[in-house]
Amino acid sequence: MKFSCYKSDLTEALQFVIRAVAVKPMTPILAGIYLKAEGSMLEIQANNFSTGIVTRIPVNTEVSGETVVSGKRFQEFVRNMPDDTITISDEDSANNLAIESGGASVELLTMTASDFPKVKTPETDRSFKIRTTALRDLIRKTVFAVSKDNDRPIFTGCCFEIKGDKISLVATNAHRLALAAEQLNETYPDSAFVVPADTLRGLMLRIDPKDVENYVTINYSTRYLTFTFDNVFVNARLIEGQFPPYDRVIPASSTTNVKVDTAEFRAAVDFVSLMSKETEYNTVKFDFADGGVEISSNSPEIGGAVKNVEAEIDGDELEISFNVNYIVDVLKVIDAKQINIALNDKYSPAAFTEPDNENYIYIATPVRT
Amino acid sequence: MKFSCYKSDLTEALQFVIRAVAVKPMTPILAGIYLKAEGSMLEIQANNFSTGIVTRIPVNTEVSGETVVSGKRFQEFVRNMPDDTITISDEDSANNLAIESGGASVELLTMTASDFPKVKTPETDRSFKIRTTALRDLIRKTVFAVSKDNDRPIFTGCCFEIKGDKISLVATNAHRLALAAEQLNETYPDSAFVVPADTLRGLMLRIDPKDVENYVTINYSTRYLTFTFDNVFVNARLIEGQFPPYDRVIPASSTTNVKVDTAEFRAAVDFVSLMSKETEYNTVKFDFADGGVEISSNSPEIGGAVKNVEAEIDGDELEISFNVNYIVDVLKVIDAKQINIALNDKYSPAAFTEPDNENYIYIATPVRT
Repeated sequence: MKFSCYKSDLTEALQFVIRAVAVKPMTPILAGIYLKAEGSMLEIQANNFSTGIVTRIPVNTEVSGETVVSGKRFQEFVRNMPDDTITISDEDSANNLAIESGGASVELLTMTASDFPKVKTPETDRSFKIRTTALRDLIRKTVFAVSKDNDRPIFTGCCFEIKGDKISLVATNAHRLALAAEQLNETYPDSAFVVPADTLRGLMLRIDPKDVENYVTINYSTRYLTFTFDNVFVNARLIEGQFPPYDRVIPASSTTNVKVDTAEFRAAVDFVSLMSKETEYNTVKFDFADGGVEISSNSPEIGGAVKNVEAEIDGDELEISFNVNYIVDVLKVIDAKQINIALNDKYSPAAFTEPDNENYIYIATPVRT
Repeated sequence: MKFSCYKSDLTEALQFVIRAVAVKPMTPILAGIYLKAEGSMLEIQANNFSTGIVTRIPVNTEVSGETVVSGKRFQEFVRNMPDDTITISDEDSANNLAIESGGASVELLTMTASDFPKVKTPETDRSFKIRTTALRDLIRKTVFAVSKDNDRPIFTGCCFEIKGDKISLVATNAHRLALAAEQLNETYPDSAFVVPADTLRGLMLRIDPKDVENYVTINYSTRYLTFTFDNVFVNARLIEGQFPPYDRVIPASSTTNVKVDTAEFRAAVDFVSLMSKETEYNTVKFDFADGGVEISSNSPEIGGAVKNVEAEIDGDELEISFNVNYIVDVLKVIDAKQINIALNDKYSPAAFTEPDNENYIYIATPVRT
């Protein structure tokens, strides 16, 4: 195998593919990246069995071939090569891949290409299409709400739910829930499946938010799913199990309705969070009254912090406390200039929505104080 | 106590003073910062008994007074205050310091000011003066070479040596040595003392490299030393013991003399260091021959990296290996466009100097391969 390519193309591809290289590989080959040069294309693969990624970049192939090298080392050396173009070859040595650029050369030990577990496409004809940027937004607005706790695997992924011509993504850790929906161009058979959060985070970073023309095709079976767009192909093993019914978590009505400027509210919560993080449960208190909200937090060992923000308050006055991280997280993904908060009492979940957007809701359970 | 001040002044002062707050305080007061408002000045002190720092900023004092608060928390909240001006007061509560700015308010528990160990000036009339930027350069070019190992405390500081109208700073860990000298404006009595590296690093960061007009006054006794400049006063406890004689470490002659472009050499060493750091002793090999130097490193488990740099080589050809960190470190502080390397054989220390600068030398012991 011998080819040359632009450093920038290879660096960008590796940055994406590296996410599917096993962090704690069970066998050395799973720490590897598979390379296959043929004609004007280099195929790059990584596979940790939960996520598999395949991408292609334009190269100038002199000798076709395939090999596997340590993903981490290959990425690091490619990134630090001195010149804009790189030549890569295993022609001069049986067990080494030579990487050359601007007078610098590196040799990396190779592994056997046939040992590498190639990424597979699921055998299915079930598929749908969605704009890449729409998928990116659905992921961005929900994936942060998944559970970090592997004891309940079903909560570590986002549930994709297709009903007619509508897709919803739902993520929850049982204490909070994010739900984002989007219209599809066609009607598809109803289905639901849970995709690992890590796969979705990698995918989100790969999608250019300005690329509003492109579509991603999603093929799925009962156990696997693939995202296909550009020169990219991402395979994910679906999380097994039944995603819990979440409709009953969404409050049907509210007795206190708040409208507040997103940027001001975010700045105030961020400020008070400096004190909240010193408390046992990261507790921040919101006092909705008198045309404003007082955001405060107190730590017996350190002191207290308070910030007031103007707000439109419709209905009953209310004091309610939350884990500050649950509030900080949603404020990072709200795109609207204002945010609506619907509340009932200090023990009931609060609903955060954007004005004039029925496709997004975030529910947070309060801290009992 | 009640005063108001600019957030930027207070933030900058705290960033400097915080370096003298104990990281693992033996008593809570040592985690504190002492504040004293009087007239148009706020005095800020921190003292961990190894380094003591006093600085002053302009404030508008309404009520004079003094207090002590947690340094870390005070710094964090001040930095995040929303407005450009801050009002600070302990008038409304016996045990709380209120910090207010742009509608945000914080209360921090205070400690008893009289419990705080105030920074003392040494009782001595021995002192000398040096331009602040010259002191900064002396520190920058030597302090990185101190030992990180507390088993031999004398090696964890820089030795200040005054002989006539010349000052030298020397740092060593017994495997490498950096020596920088500077002319003083007057002749002073000969003396030598060892200042903790941490104190010097903090001082170096505080000195504006563009401020070439100012002088720092250094007062010293047998146990303490103080640096005084601007509104800053830094006290250091000298490290006890005898700094070892280092003259014999400096090679008297050399059989291979190399001149190489600093930037090219640095880039090549940085590149090869990616492989060196995977080896047991961070080993990088330099092959000085044929009008160039080949820089290389090999790891049995990973592979190898090589980069060639053009160089003027006068004398014998030579292969020699170093701990790559010893080379990377000195290349960060060399200001000259070219660097001279003087060598003898693969077992003897190498000397790194700047052309036309007799005031700087760096010695590194090779790795035996």
